[in-house]
Amino acid sequence: MVHGREHLRRIPESTIRRLPAYLRALENLKCLRTTSVGLGEATGYSSEQVRKDLAYFGAFGTRGVGYDVRDLGQQIRHILGLDQGVRAVLVGAGHLGTALVRYTQVSSGDVEFVAMLDNDPQVIGTTIGGIVVQDVRQMVSVVKEQTIRLAVLTVPARAAEEVAQDLAKAGIGAILNFAPVPILTDQHPPGSVLVQSIDLTLELQALAYFVSEHDVFSPA
Amino acid sequence: MVHGREHLRRIPESTIRRLPAYLRALENLKCLRTTSVGLGEATGYSSEQVRKDLAYFGAFGTRGVGYDVRDLGQQIRHILGLDQGVRAVLVGAGHLGTALVRYTQVSSGDVEFVAMLDNDPQVIGTTIGGIVVQDVRQMVSVVKEQTIRLAVLTVPARAAEEVAQDLAKAGIGAILNFAPVPILTDQHPPGSVLVQSIDLTLELQALAYFVSEHDVFSPA
Repeated sequence: MVHGREHLRRIPESTIRRLPAYLRALENLKCLRTTSVGLGEATGYSSEQVRKDLAYFGAFGTRGVGYDVRDLGQQIRHILGLDQGVRAVLVGAGHLGTALVRYTQVSSGDVEFVAMLDNDPQVIGTTIGGIVVQDVRQMVSVVKEQTIRLAVLTVPARAAEEVAQDLAKAGIGAILNFAPVPILTDQHPPGSVLVQSIDLTLELQALAYFVSEHDVFSPA
Repeated sequence: MVHGREHLRRIPESTIRRLPAYLRALENLKCLRTTSVGLGEATGYSSEQVRKDLAYFGAFGTRGVGYDVRDLGQQIRHILGLDQGVRAVLVGAGHLGTALVRYTQVSSGDVEFVAMLDNDPQVIGTTIGGIVVQDVRQMVSVVKEQTIRLAVLTVPARAAEEVAQDLAKAGIGAILNFAPVPILTDQHPPGSVLVQSIDLTLELQALAYFVSEHDVFSPA
């Protein structure tokens, strides 16, 4: 079947966010065909959710026959743009940044870090995971020259907004932000850079609620 | 005011997940009083969202007077259980695990790692961020003796489910899972352990969709 860009634009973000999980499950399956029930069990989503998500791009499992594992995986990789490869830059080559680059090199999934940037003279010029860390002041030219569209931000909170603004100007399309602060909240036009924030402290604090003993509540 | 446990049970999970962001904003504010508009700007949420969330536990800003910054912060810390301190264990002391422990020690937020576990003889006995890494085979006794209720999982995918099952048996209430695989999907009773998964590869792959050029779609 042929997909038009207009068609894909209508896929909800929540569905897009589940597609990588389906893809991983398909790549791990040791079989030729599977069903929405099988994909659901492998990913933790309901079979109804799987069916609904896949129907958005015209993949309909045939009752009793199911989905072709290899074909469905290729379709999802194509939709996500992974078949073209995705070049990413990491800004902030500290402990967390280094761990993230090494982690993605092991379980890559077609997203490849091609550049790392930092502002620490002790770190600039060192090699981490085969990548030479460059001066963050060269960020705009690095992003433009290598046509990088995806950035991962592991800089301190105080530096995050300025770096994010510069990344936006350089043409970055999406930022995975680990700095513990909201970034690019005031975009013109809104949403031109997609920001996905992962704030480890906030995650841990929210989980604290669910494990704390709420037996006695004293007057506030 | 007095909060009963039953009252808090009705706070939606989505609200709980935003409370740590409000708390951080309150702690960073250099003023005595603020408004829902101010808290919204500091966190990236709308003022309506802020008002609605805070109203769940009876914090109503007075028009023209707003919220008492210190008092509201204390209320949120109490609701999250942070005023009692939260002890956490990290399982998997590799690059990512080490980075996470060090990261939370800098921006702690009252969640404290008190134990680290690994299965690598080369890693067991070493000290990371002031914590001596122990043998993962001692996990159940470590969790029980130190009454740890929160676990962070940075083990390889193949080990994740077994470790998670053991953590559940040991009485862990919530797991922040970085292993790239769903865990504890089949709980009895369901939901007895809260699992929050952060899958870095899946996050990057989903972002790939938003930065890829979907101009030409070839027939599948």
